Parts: sequence; structure tokens; C-alpha cells
Amino acid sequence: MIKLYDSELSGSCYKVRLLLHILKVSYETIAVDFISKEQKTPKFARLNPFGELPVLEDGDLRLRDAQAIMIYLARKYDKSNTWFPDAAGPMGEIAQWLSTGGNEIMNAAGARLVKLLNYPLDLARLQARAHAVFQIMDDHLADREFLALGYPTIGDIACFPYTALAGEGDISLKPYSNILRWIDRMKGIPGFISMPGIPAIQAMV
Amino acid sequence: MIKLYDSELSGSCYKVRLLLHILKVSYETIAVDFISKEQKTPKFARLNPFGELPVLEDGDLRLRDAQAIMIYLARKYDKSNTWFPDAAGPMGEIAQWLSTGGNEIMNAAGARLVKLLNYPLDLARLQARAHAVFQIMDDHLADREFLALGYPTIGDIACFPYTALAGEGDISLKPYSNILRWIDRMKGIPGFISMPGIPAIQAMV
Repeated sequence: MIKLYDSELSGSCYKVRLLLHILKVSYETIAVDFISKEQKTPKFARLNPFGELPVLEDGDLRLRDAQAIMIYLARKYDKSNTWFPDAAGPMGEIAQWLSTGGNEIMNAAGARLVKLLNYPLDLARLQARAHAVFQIMDDHLADREFLALGYPTIGDIACFPYTALAGEGDISLKPYSNILRWIDRMKGIPGFISMPGIPAIQAMV
Repeated sequence: MIKLYDSELSGSCYKVRLLLHILKVSYETIAVDFISKEQKTPKFARLNPFGELPVLEDGDLRLRDAQAIMIYLARKYDKSNTWFPDAAGPMGEIAQWLSTGGNEIMNAAGARLVKLLNYPLDLARLQARAHAVFQIMDDHLADREFLALGYPTIGDIACFPYTALAGEGDISLKPYSNILRWIDRMKGIPGFISMPGIPAIQAMV
């Protein structure tokens, strides 16, 4: 059985839970106490020396990093071959958004940590950088339903949590109508599950 | 012919040049003036709204982000099927190091920009974070020749440039003997090319 070292509060862990649900793959979670920073302890460092969640174990394989884990899960368990399809061009298109989800959008994650857990980070700078990437995404989604291809991929999942949770970092998505529609489209994917903090109906945020 | 929007000074562009040389793929470069921040102009934004190098064009496909570009190139042009092999487990293992190369190691890239181009960034923090990831890499390489698999992959290339260039950001690699040996191993790969700033013999740094 797949084991996911998990925190319910972590948007990065949620990426993995969401993909596992969509792919109908069974798994068990081992709760890690993110609030007390259990992932920064020496004990956890044996699982992931970077001290970050999530970590996934599947048999003898242990992986860190939500984006890397999604690449693995999609190639291993996605019988539809659509979430990270086996073709160079689509893989490259998707990987661009894996990068965005693991980099620029993490500014919104940082703003959320300041607001929810008083992390000592520069809130205004994080919010400004989050707005910059949301503007790019909104422009990109003007004539597209999903970020990378004509259907949802792990590129969308990589960008979804901390975009949908932006309000928790005092970042309004109201200026980004294409993003709001994309979020509601994501919620319509068969197998979709939510997480605490993501509004049921995004347009009302 | 593949077009690479390129700066000779950019370690991220160098990742792509290095892989293209190793795979013996012909390409042409379009020089972008990184020092005058040409990549931040509205004209360049039409190629990449994130305002970052490199950008690659192959026929109708245009890709941003060195890691995404390497995934594409390896799947498309690597007849050996070793640089990003077509198998879920190895892909996941490699993708972890693509993430490290695009994230934690970029602290060393930031330190280099402070020292070379006077970027207004927190040098001490960047150096400390770079040392943290180099310690993890050095421990990881204690019983391994390459980062992800038993042979070089795009995970190694993703981490190589800003590690080998660390000295330009006043970050000494002397404490990391396993990294120094890994760097010299990378230099032995058939088709290897260097870039300005990477010492010819790493052990002498």
C-alpha cells in the first residue's frame, strides 16, 4: 500500500492526495505535524533531508517533492495516459507548469503561512509576486480551459492548491476571472476532493 | 533547426546547451542580453511572460524553464533512453533533482548575481541556504556516483551549473569532497562542454 507522509494543511500534500483520488489509487497517510514543524526534525530528515512534505513511499521507492511524486504516480498509475502523457511535447508543456507550481506560485503559499501561522516573511513582497504570476496565468487562460493541454494534467494540479487558497494569504482572485473559471473547472474533474480553506464556490470569494 | 534564446552567462541556459551537446542535437542560439535585462522587456514577454531565460523553440513548440526544456529534449532526442528514461520510478527519482536544481540550488545562483552584477539580494542568507543544500547533496553523493540513478541524467545537469559556479558567489565547495568528485565526473561525460566561470579542475578551487 502506498504511504503518504501528509499534513492536511499543506497544499503540496493536497496535490498528491488529489491526484491519487482522481487516479483511484489506494493509499494510507501518516500524519506529520506541520504546525510544530515535525518535518524539520532529525527523525523526519531520514525520510527527506530537505525537511519538506510530502514524502511518498511505494514499495522500495521513496520520493520527495509534490511535482516529482506526481510525475511518478501519473506514469505508473494513469491508465488514461493524459495526466502526464508519454510524448515529448506534452511532457515539456506540462513540466513548465510543474515548475510554476513549485516556484512562482509558492509566493502565495508563503503569504498564507504569514497570515495563518505568523511566519516571519515579507508579506507584501510575497503578495506582489503572487499577483504577478496570477496575472500571467489569467492571461494564459483567456483562450484555454487548462494550463498545459486541452484537458487537465498534473501541470494544473501543481498550480491549483495555492491558487485556490490565495485568499488565506489575503490575495484576492477577483481580478482574475479566467483563473476563477479554471478553479471551478478543476472542481468538476471526476474524483476531485477539496481541502480545508478552499471555498466551495470560488466565484463568491 | 532548434532555436535557443540564450545568454552565455546564464547557468540555466547552459543546462540546455550542455544537454544539446551531449545528445548531439544541432541548434542555433539567439543571444539575449542578460546584463541589460533584455529578458524583462515587453518584447521578450511575448516569448516568455515570466521574463526568464532560457526559451527553446522546436518547430511550432515553444518552451520556457530549463528543467521543462530538458524533459522535452531528453524524451525527444535521447536515443539511449537514459537521460530521462521512460519508466515511472526513474522519472520520479530524476524529477526530485530537477526540483532541487530549479529551487534550492538557485540560492547559489542568487549569490552569484549579487557578487557579479550587484543584485540587491540578501547575500548571507543566499549563501547559508546554498550551503544547506550542498551539505545534503554531499551526504547523498557519499555512496553514489550521480544524483538520481547509477548514471548521469537530466537531474544531474539541473544541479550542475550553479553548483560548479558556486565560487563566483563566494561559496566555497572545499567542505564538500563528494560534490567535487561528482563535478569532475560530470566533466568526463562524452560531449561535455563548459561555460565561463567553471574552473577547469574543480579540486583546485
